[in-house]
Amino acid sequence: MVKKANFSQIKEKVAREGVTRRVFSGEKSMMVLNTIKAFAKPALHQHPHEQITYILAGECDFTLGEDLVRLGPGDVILVPPDVPHTLTPLGQETIINLDVFTPIRDDYL
Amino acid sequence: MVKKANFSQIKEKVAREGVTRRVFSGEKSMMVLNTIKAFAKPALHQHPHEQITYILAGECDFTLGEDLVRLGPGDVILVPPDVPHTLTPLGQETIINLDVFTPIRDDYL
Repeated sequence: MVKKANFSQIKEKVAREGVTRRVFSGEKSMMVLNTIKAFAKPALHQHPHEQITYILAGECDFTLGEDLVRLGPGDVILVPPDVPHTLTPLGQETIINLDVFTPIRDDYL
Repeated sequence: MVKKANFSQIKEKVAREGVTRRVFSGEKSMMVLNTIKAFAKPALHQHPHEQITYILAGECDFTLGEDLVRLGPGDVILVPPDVPHTLTPLGQETIINLDVFTPIRDDYL
């Protein structure tokens, strides 16, 4: 049995105001496609899962521990386990980013 | 120390004729951005790593074990460990796809 989907047809979940996510999970890692509107204010948070974030559209300031880096399309960043992080959208464009979590986030299933 | 990059600036490696890859690795999982030209003939192969493949551009027939599925932009598919797989490009457009491997592929570092 093949497990496949199209992200456009995966039901989106509203994570918070202006933030949606679509989840496609394996057994060992999970892809999450997020949209983050310009007005959204994601909160600083942390988790024991390793995260890799790949920016597909939009620009943001990304906070990772004590560091602040600017990210735009094509940028990819590693969020090690348990490091607090968040992002602040820049400009008016909705951010589209792909997060990979390892291990999978059971709270997203 | 933040680990970040832009995929366009990651040195591409020619995997085989018409196939390139750019690698960004964490400790637990690895993102690989591939380009596969229409004439390329990727070989059937398998590995113990779980793989999730996300098609960003182009269309292909994807072979997974005994199954054959057509994939296009936005499609995402799970390749469980040790299942033989390959893809055949369709049309003339170069395929751009993102693979996530868990655990990381040491042979790609």
